[in-house]
Amino acid sequence: MMNTNIKNEIPYKIYLTEDEMPKAWYNLRSAMKNKPAPLLNPGTGLPMTAAELEGVFCAELVAQELDNDTPYFEIPQEIRDFYKMYRPSPLVRAYCLEEKLGTPAHIYYKFEGNNTSGSHKLNSAIAQAYYAKKQGLAGVTTETGAGQWGTALSMACGYLGLDCKVYMVKVSYEQKPFRREVMRTYGASVTPSPSDTTAVGRKILAENPGTTGSLGCAISEAVEAAVSTPGYRYVLGSVLNQVLLHQSIIGLETQAALDKVGVKPDIIIGCAGGGSNLGGLIAPFMRDKINGDLDCRIVAVEPASCPSLTRGVYAYDFCDTGMVCPLAKMYTLGSSFIPAPNHAGGLRYHGMSSILSQLYDDGLMEAVSVPQVEVFKAAEEFARVEGILPAPESSHAIKAAIDEALKCKETGEAKNIVFGLTGTGYFDLVAYQKFHDGQLDDYIPTDDDLAKSLAKLPHLG
Amino acid sequence: MMNTNIKNEIPYKIYLTEDEMPKAWYNLRSAMKNKPAPLLNPGTGLPMTAAELEGVFCAELVAQELDNDTPYFEIPQEIRDFYKMYRPSPLVRAYCLEEKLGTPAHIYYKFEGNNTSGSHKLNSAIAQAYYAKKQGLAGVTTETGAGQWGTALSMACGYLGLDCKVYMVKVSYEQKPFRREVMRTYGASVTPSPSDTTAVGRKILAENPGTTGSLGCAISEAVEAAVSTPGYRYVLGSVLNQVLLHQSIIGLETQAALDKVGVKPDIIIGCAGGGSNLGGLIAPFMRDKINGDLDCRIVAVEPASCPSLTRGVYAYDFCDTGMVCPLAKMYTLGSSFIPAPNHAGGLRYHGMSSILSQLYDDGLMEAVSVPQVEVFKAAEEFARVEGILPAPESSHAIKAAIDEALKCKETGEAKNIVFGLTGTGYFDLVAYQKFHDGQLDDYIPTDDDLAKSLAKLPHLG
Repeated sequence: MMNTNIKNEIPYKIYLTEDEMPKAWYNLRSAMKNKPAPLLNPGTGLPMTAAELEGVFCAELVAQELDNDTPYFEIPQEIRDFYKMYRPSPLVRAYCLEEKLGTPAHIYYKFEGNNTSGSHKLNSAIAQAYYAKKQGLAGVTTETGAGQWGTALSMACGYLGLDCKVYMVKVSYEQKPFRREVMRTYGASVTPSPSDTTAVGRKILAENPGTTGSLGCAISEAVEAAVSTPGYRYVLGSVLNQVLLHQSIIGLETQAALDKVGVKPDIIIGCAGGGSNLGGLIAPFMRDKINGDLDCRIVAVEPASCPSLTRGVYAYDFCDTGMVCPLAKMYTLGSSFIPAPNHAGGLRYHGMSSILSQLYDDGLMEAVSVPQVEVFKAAEEFARVEGILPAPESSHAIKAAIDEALKCKETGEAKNIVFGLTGTGYFDLVAYQKFHDGQLDDYIPTDDDLAKSLAKLPHLG
Repeated sequence: MMNTNIKNEIPYKIYLTEDEMPKAWYNLRSAMKNKPAPLLNPGTGLPMTAAELEGVFCAELVAQELDNDTPYFEIPQEIRDFYKMYRPSPLVRAYCLEEKLGTPAHIYYKFEGNNTSGSHKLNSAIAQAYYAKKQGLAGVTTETGAGQWGTALSMACGYLGLDCKVYMVKVSYEQKPFRREVMRTYGASVTPSPSDTTAVGRKILAENPGTTGSLGCAISEAVEAAVSTPGYRYVLGSVLNQVLLHQSIIGLETQAALDKVGVKPDIIIGCAGGGSNLGGLIAPFMRDKINGDLDCRIVAVEPASCPSLTRGVYAYDFCDTGMVCPLAKMYTLGSSFIPAPNHAGGLRYHGMSSILSQLYDDGLMEAVSVPQVEVFKAAEEFARVEGILPAPESSHAIKAAIDEALKCKETGEAKNIVFGLTGTGYFDLVAYQKFHDGQLDDYIPTDDDLAKSLAKLPHLG
């Protein structure tokens, strides 16, 4: 498995040609022996049916959500054309980082930040917008926190001429006017949440007049807006099976690029919030691992301040704080869990995609958590040698990759380390500023903190 | 010359391989029959000697600045390695824009925004930092307005371990804290200008206590800091011959990419402030045009609010408002000219590179000016169909390219239009917000305005 390439035999950036780009998404569930648990109707405790889900999501996306068996879904030509505007993304050999670390390890990263949304989120946004358009819908609704997903969806809808209503967590709406402005440029309407445009928003405002909002609240508003407006459906940027399916383009391209240069990964590392990037990056590699064709460690990296895999429980929980969404079985900290206010590194979701949760529970995937000050140090070190200013989310993977590369330095092993660099930090400079000014610290939830939110898990009949 | 390729025969993005990347910069001056006029010492009125320039600039850069004859300068391996981190940049076929416009024209753009500095400026920043490092200097000083150049130089210096002192126009320092923060991430020190760290800064502050600074003032401070600090030199991001030399990488890559797909350009379009992007983009094409090997229009696009080529005079003028720098012969509006306060589109320099000025004066290049509201409309239209949120500067070229493509629609000609997309607008969202809110208008300087600043041109003995 050790790679003996000398510098420059492998280029700095490995690009597929457009002809080599994947023509189908890969459904990792088809390779899983233990399938992810189904979504449950919180009222009945029974698995959600296609008919129930189609009130909220487009029909084709519901079919993708529920299909645990079909290995490949063809990518429609229109989506492939859109992908060509910003894909294939480069697989970069981190020569400069290797040299800085003095490690014999070979480090590669799949860089998803070369598009205006600044992250991998666009891969699923265009797919979800496409199926909505194909179904003849007038528009879609969604929520956004930091704004990456909202931007991605705005771009996709702008391209297809589909209306896009974004509920943006109020505190982000006020603190991140630039993200809001990008969405406006692409023609989306952006509403600070909670708002008086929905019943659930008005209820929350009445109960908490001064609230600055939360992702869970914004989800509830976006869902209500979708189901109460004819011709609209709701879309979500992570967690769901369909999203991981679309994001498999990341892993398929990565595997094809590694194959081009004859490299097998020893360790694959990805940051994990809801799991969309990690689930996409690992999809074909996990299949090969399950089938015994690849001997490779797969590592999820999460913030120590929001440690769903490393300190959560594997149970059915609500996907949103408003408790209006279906129940998903996942590693969760409880749907009422909120990371400490000074957490600046993203990846704030209380749970983890059902697919990744099942793989972790089956021992096919490892998980580590890292404190945020170390994450920003790794981000800055990376930026100075590799040029790219990384998103705080992505920097969790950088930190873990550096740690693995330094272990290789101790052992003298030339392991092939592959990590996902999900995006850029151009809209996260407030977090960098806090880091530079020494205003970030590491608040790690206590066991008591977690016990409180876990006590509110739903009780199933 | 007409291209008859059908959609998808030419890929969306044409990439060179790393082996195909240029190994030398091209010196356009070597092909010019009328050479650009030399820099003059403002005290003596005589051409600046190498010895005089070496007090301010590194020796190797001075040699590049003064050499009108050598066609190619080899790119040192270290710089080529750095280029590989973010180059080759893609030459993109704008299929989606063509379809939106319904034009038979074939539109290509060379996209220089896929790096953290967000623009082409990095191409010269790494070169200038490299020669400073090679000369054994401790650091470099520079000025920055909007921040693209300062960011690029910070990245290059961070990579090479060279100290970097940036004088940032005070109003930008205060209004663009994110740009400042990126520079800090790369280890640069950023000082708002005017400051009390230089004699010229203290003088300006004493005379204008409430001033928010200007680029000309920041240049004066950066030059003083360089010449008064042992082991430091000054670097500049545009206008100079050396900068256009480094930026020739843009044009060389563009020509190689077009050759790969068998396309000859009919029109080449670039935005022009100081001229670094345009001079780099056109370098090999202008050579071919001068030699009679290429029949092609070359068009400079400038803001109607800062129209140095279209409304300036061709004369010797100061490069800075502080009048401490050498005199350059250029199309100029006068070194005291400042665009209207509501001008949000960049390209604010009062003059134009001597190389481009001479080519324009020789009738080898055309120039058009465009009002900013039209520029932002074109930017938004482009963003929605091509995905990329363009910098306002770059959007001047977009506007001109769209206009040419629409002319082709009228005439039915399938011309090949190539333009330079110099960068992204991620740090220009305040300008986009003003555009969306209807707060931008078009103030075009009156003849009286121009007469006032032109009256202050230096009188040469």
